[in-house]
Amino acid sequence: MTVTTPAGFRAAGVPAGLKSTGAKDVALVVNDGPRFDSASVFTSNRCKANPILWSQEVVKDGVVRAVVLNSGGANCYTGAEGFQTTHAVAERVADRLGIGAIDVVVCSTGLIGLANPRQNLLDGVDAAYDALSATGGEEAAQAIMTTDSVHKQVVVEGAGWSIGGMAKGAGMLAPQLATMLVVLTTDAVVEAADLDRALRAATRVSFDRLDSDGCMSTNDTVTVMASGASGITPTLDDFTDGLTQACTDLAMQLLKDAEGADHEIAITVVNAASEDDAVEVGRSVARSNLFKAAVFGKDPNWGRVLASMGTTQAAFDPADLDVAMNGVWVCRASTPAEDPAGVDLTPREVSVTIDLKSGDERATVWTNDLTHAYVHENSAYSS
Amino acid sequence: MTVTTPAGFRAAGVPAGLKSTGAKDVALVVNDGPRFDSASVFTSNRCKANPILWSQEVVKDGVVRAVVLNSGGANCYTGAEGFQTTHAVAERVADRLGIGAIDVVVCSTGLIGLANPRQNLLDGVDAAYDALSATGGEEAAQAIMTTDSVHKQVVVEGAGWSIGGMAKGAGMLAPQLATMLVVLTTDAVVEAADLDRALRAATRVSFDRLDSDGCMSTNDTVTVMASGASGITPTLDDFTDGLTQACTDLAMQLLKDAEGADHEIAITVVNAASEDDAVEVGRSVARSNLFKAAVFGKDPNWGRVLASMGTTQAAFDPADLDVAMNGVWVCRASTPAEDPAGVDLTPREVSVTIDLKSGDERATVWTNDLTHAYVHENSAYSS
Repeated sequence: MTVTTPAGFRAAGVPAGLKSTGAKDVALVVNDGPRFDSASVFTSNRCKANPILWSQEVVKDGVVRAVVLNSGGANCYTGAEGFQTTHAVAERVADRLGIGAIDVVVCSTGLIGLANPRQNLLDGVDAAYDALSATGGEEAAQAIMTTDSVHKQVVVEGAGWSIGGMAKGAGMLAPQLATMLVVLTTDAVVEAADLDRALRAATRVSFDRLDSDGCMSTNDTVTVMASGASGITPTLDDFTDGLTQACTDLAMQLLKDAEGADHEIAITVVNAASEDDAVEVGRSVARSNLFKAAVFGKDPNWGRVLASMGTTQAAFDPADLDVAMNGVWVCRASTPAEDPAGVDLTPREVSVTIDLKSGDERATVWTNDLTHAYVHENSAYSS
Repeated sequence: MTVTTPAGFRAAGVPAGLKSTGAKDVALVVNDGPRFDSASVFTSNRCKANPILWSQEVVKDGVVRAVVLNSGGANCYTGAEGFQTTHAVAERVADRLGIGAIDVVVCSTGLIGLANPRQNLLDGVDAAYDALSATGGEEAAQAIMTTDSVHKQVVVEGAGWSIGGMAKGAGMLAPQLATMLVVLTTDAVVEAADLDRALRAATRVSFDRLDSDGCMSTNDTVTVMASGASGITPTLDDFTDGLTQACTDLAMQLLKDAEGADHEIAITVVNAASEDDAVEVGRSVARSNLFKAAVFGKDPNWGRVLASMGTTQAAFDPADLDVAMNGVWVCRASTPAEDPAGVDLTPREVSVTIDLKSGDERATVWTNDLTHAYVHENSAYSS
């Protein structure tokens, strides 16, 4: 059930002393081919960490042969020295594998503004290389955890091919990715250009619609590598469907593990004039601290839903909006309708449905509630 | 020190049974002239409450003779019935004063999605009319409180003229106003068009730069009335300066009374290419839950400042940003500089200075920290 489930991949996760706990903190995922197609998406934050600056160059030719990841330090806002550390790590991986450093994606996560100890990282790469195994995916997934309470993996089976994936992330999940590292593998034969199309389609409706706290990280990376080891070439539609399923599964695992959350909230906007409108409206509600605090308090406060929507430019009539919470239409035509007392917000899963009555498009955005524990974790944890 | 300090105004605040506590909940501020110039700004939220829909029409001709306000119910998302309640209240004020309803601004605040009891409101108007007095400003200020812990007033003295003001608001303070009612009075002679210019200039750098929790209310109104009773016509610059001083004073009172906050945070962006850029960057930081939770935890987390800035389109080099907290330059050229341990976040007042090195413009945006108490109040209080 890991990145090593598809044929052609080896992985490892080892402790390198970056985490003070002594837990695993360096992961390596290697594509042994025969093909080395790849695609990646990165955070859209303009203040990018050094590993992003490096990896953006690596992925340009559509060839990636290995991804090396570390937790215990984000290598962000660490200047030229930090960039050299990233470069040195890629070089070390390349040396051991006998490949070029320009085919090695580097990902880092953890505290920002602190230099990563270079020697620990290089020693960690050596140890990870020595530990590489066709069953090492699970250990790699463990090595990238930070505040995650569980490691996150997925496998999607196609007809003679498969997709494996691992992810790291808890809280700080925002649009266009955020403090999230994802590595996906497949043994299908997929050309780099098609991988790129499939990955963008998959992330657009999964990770990009996760908005845990509106904050956007500096280190987020999603990379997919295709080994072609199955010898099977799925249709692009089939592959995109599988990749979307894998990304959505991982996104839901990230959502459920958001720091300090009590509820997972799915905001579905229907009958929008455009999908963009639906996403904009869903996002505005997902970012309302007042609405999120109300859900924590088990208060089906649809007024805060409408107040958030009013800040958007989406097409709708402010006087003719319907809102349901957990299936109870508490608001019709922007006025009170069914009794909110009928909305049970005890279960973790909450659904909000918003009818814009302006078209045929729809989208779902996911978020969490705003809790005491969120404030506690994010005031106590320096990152 | 109230809206009745300038000559030509009477006011009152009375209990009308809208608040279950029996506290004052209807306020009336009347301009007795000789002039009736006015200007107003309203929430930019598209989902507007009924009093806003009414008052937007009232203010169009630049003449306002009275403002009637109630707490205990926002009359928002209450449909046609709610609009009729607003209209009936304006008519009752007009009847008692012998003026036209179209010169009566109506403001409401409190729970949304619930009908305001019309008879209570009308009885409240009668009682407020009977209680009108040239010293009634303070009682009016008390009658508009909701979760406010103190009532908020200001007086600014000019050369032979003055400005008085009262405000209601605590939390939910966002750009372009939010859950905030403000009435300003002056006995200066100021034509309506000049009042409008002065008010927009004043609110642009005061209320509009307050961003307590990123949420924007449905009922916000700032109205200024000029009686001309002093007979003195100040220069527009002098009057604008005085009005800006009054609005800034009230804005700081609102900031300090934000629900559950432990810190007032002033984010000053300097050397920006434009004032808009400075405001955009300041706002992005003010809206970062992660940054605000860090301040609550007394953690001078400048990495979260840079990560927020990276989400903006403002002109700057992401690799060359300086950040100071309480005067300590913890970040220079986007890398660690002075020791963050030197930043004492124990006092309530926190300053963040961000140097964009891209021009000569600057702006300050104010916000609060994100605390356990914020979550508590906003999960327990239905609004």
